[in-house]
Amino acid sequence: MKLLIKNALVVKMDSEASPSIEDIGIVNSRIKYLGKSSSFKEDFDEVLDAENMIALPAFVNAHTHLSMEYMRNYKDTAPDLFSWLNEIFPIEAKLNDNDVYWGSLLGCAELIKGGCTTFADMYFFRDQTAKAVKESGINANLGFTLFGDLEDSKRRYKEEYPKIKPFVDHDRIILDVAPHAIYTTSGPSYIYGADFAKDIGGKLHTHLSETSKEVKDSIQSFNMTPAMYLESLGIFDKVGTYLAHCVHLTEKEINLLKRKDVSIVHNPSSNCKLASGIAPMKSYKNHGINTALGTDGASSNNNLNMMKELNLAALLASVSEMDTVAFTPFEILQMATLGGAKALGREKDLGTIEIGKKADIILIDKNMVNMTPLNNIYSALVYSCSSENIDTVISNGKILMKNRKLLTLNEKEICKKVNEVWLDIKER
Amino acid sequence: MKLLIKNALVVKMDSEASPSIEDIGIVNSRIKYLGKSSSFKEDFDEVLDAENMIALPAFVNAHTHLSMEYMRNYKDTAPDLFSWLNEIFPIEAKLNDNDVYWGSLLGCAELIKGGCTTFADMYFFRDQTAKAVKESGINANLGFTLFGDLEDSKRRYKEEYPKIKPFVDHDRIILDVAPHAIYTTSGPSYIYGADFAKDIGGKLHTHLSETSKEVKDSIQSFNMTPAMYLESLGIFDKVGTYLAHCVHLTEKEINLLKRKDVSIVHNPSSNCKLASGIAPMKSYKNHGINTALGTDGASSNNNLNMMKELNLAALLASVSEMDTVAFTPFEILQMATLGGAKALGREKDLGTIEIGKKADIILIDKNMVNMTPLNNIYSALVYSCSSENIDTVISNGKILMKNRKLLTLNEKEICKKVNEVWLDIKER
Repeated sequence: MKLLIKNALVVKMDSEASPSIEDIGIVNSRIKYLGKSSSFKEDFDEVLDAENMIALPAFVNAHTHLSMEYMRNYKDTAPDLFSWLNEIFPIEAKLNDNDVYWGSLLGCAELIKGGCTTFADMYFFRDQTAKAVKESGINANLGFTLFGDLEDSKRRYKEEYPKIKPFVDHDRIILDVAPHAIYTTSGPSYIYGADFAKDIGGKLHTHLSETSKEVKDSIQSFNMTPAMYLESLGIFDKVGTYLAHCVHLTEKEINLLKRKDVSIVHNPSSNCKLASGIAPMKSYKNHGINTALGTDGASSNNNLNMMKELNLAALLASVSEMDTVAFTPFEILQMATLGGAKALGREKDLGTIEIGKKADIILIDKNMVNMTPLNNIYSALVYSCSSENIDTVISNGKILMKNRKLLTLNEKEICKKVNEVWLDIKER
Repeated sequence: MKLLIKNALVVKMDSEASPSIEDIGIVNSRIKYLGKSSSFKEDFDEVLDAENMIALPAFVNAHTHLSMEYMRNYKDTAPDLFSWLNEIFPIEAKLNDNDVYWGSLLGCAELIKGGCTTFADMYFFRDQTAKAVKESGINANLGFTLFGDLEDSKRRYKEEYPKIKPFVDHDRIILDVAPHAIYTTSGPSYIYGADFAKDIGGKLHTHLSETSKEVKDSIQSFNMTPAMYLESLGIFDKVGTYLAHCVHLTEKEINLLKRKDVSIVHNPSSNCKLASGIAPMKSYKNHGINTALGTDGASSNNNLNMMKELNLAALLASVSEMDTVAFTPFEILQMATLGGAKALGREKDLGTIEIGKKADIILIDKNMVNMTPLNNIYSALVYSCSSENIDTVISNGKILMKNRKLLTLNEKEICKKVNEVWLDIKER
């Protein structure tokens, strides 16, 4: 497949330089040309007229739980993370592979409509999510979730790994290992997970320092704050790691994470909604830590819309630091693109629009009322843009959405099926 | 015109009772029937099939500056409100009536696409905004803006009032008086404005206690905090008042505003973006103050999307109070509907779906991926919904948008014209 995007205002996201009108030539899954198409030596199969469009690297959602779609708006007035988990865990215990398949398909549909083509997931029945990802046309770092003691982790490995292994191509699908959290997963399980991740060429993905209660409990149980506890287990020296939430890190922990080249995934909606707090992202940035952005699951957000997430990240940064440029709009967009790609070990392939990178690109309609006039393109993308402006989504060189219609997934069928499955889950 | 909405899930917003499937019969501009259409004794001219839709009262945007659309994303990395105003004021000094007309049309288009049919505006060239409002089909409380000393206010009255007077019908268009702020408008101008508002049957609308600098300066200049200063001028006893921002009120001021039946308009995006702070809305609610919601102008938001605003209001309330139910989703929706209607003196006509009220209703598509499954309708509307889900907007019994296409305004023409006018403004 050879695809030509003509006359887009290309926001490459490799530097804050003013974007210019360019053509993008895509051959198979990668960007082969950038510039004037008259100089591209290729016969293209399809041409997209992007005269009214901004071309932006597709978003990377660096922390979610895709199949929690079922629990969207479900019992979401719980007073905090732990009370809410007590509502959620009994439902999750009832889920089967078919449930996760349909929940994952709905999640993929929602991600694409929000301009996201790569996500880092933490959940169960990994083969079912992989199947949905393959069908949808997007990419995923699927977290092989650990939860419990070492025996439990070994059992999960034995039962689940053979099922997911055939899907792992280290291209569209990477397998990471995702111990849930230090309050649900034992130290030996974390060590086992880190070794497992290293063996399979993946990274370690976990929740960390999400609430002040977690920090307090960690000090009580381990006599250490959460990141120091993971360090004491030797996790960061074994394998590349990305940490979701990180609302309550100490200065000592921040310095440690920088030294160990760990990425931090900001989940602003979930952290607000569950009253966990506002992560001090400016401090992480100032320490030189790579920062990414994630929606968390639909049950604590309650959507998977990266456009909403980056808008919130910008607003929270300004108000929590009382500094209007705590993060510039360009830096916010970087968290949602290259920062996410780096966290997921995909920066050679994703996160910017450059020759040689994968063609994961979104086209944003800039001629709609909410983008008029277009005074500063980075501000417009962060503060004015909505997912509705995302007209076209391309992943691996293939068009997945055009005119906001999904081309690889059937939205109506998926919604109908998810409603049926959810009724069934509740009645089990 | 007689319009029948069939089979909508009607969220009336008069109480938190579970919504049910009902038909809504509209005759001319008002709701005449609610229930089963088989019992409605009327021949309807048009029937809207709302089987997949939630019917919700249209939003009230209780504080904006509509024609600031031109300055969307313009010089918006200023470090605070006052530096930013110094960028904006020289541009505003160049605006003429034609500029304000086209800016207002763009603003009306953006409001409708975000489900809003009534707004409280503070700006200049009121007749031009009134013209745009009339053409668009929506409602407005237009603030006759005062700015400067008493002589200046008298001059404005003499020059501008005759122009706006013919548009004021106390139905679709109400004229309020809007002294800009205590740091730009003199005490005598405020008193003049309050008398003027009383004379014309309007309310007083002003910015108050937006930044800690404003409070500090007020204490320095008047030896009083801002609300106590307005009280010392006798404003609240002269006329009904609604105050935008109110980020930094003291306990004494909060008690005063409750006693004087003053409404507070929350502007969460603008207050975050300009690093003004997070208004303590829970405290205002607990004191029994009527609270409303507004986007502020597109130049400090940078959009006029009430769906984004209510989502942010909910998230900020939870995180700033560290309380997941500081505001329930129902209460957040109330701020954006009945709370706004009350602030604007329109609660007899707007803010709920009830027989006898104006037919200002939006239909929200609940069968889209981001609303599936629909576990809690109030949470879904606040946390999952986007403006894209708003399919249909009705105001005064007339359909203004259907399938997200505007019927009274030409979006493409307005965008084109606004871009041309803005180029011209900058070159003047």
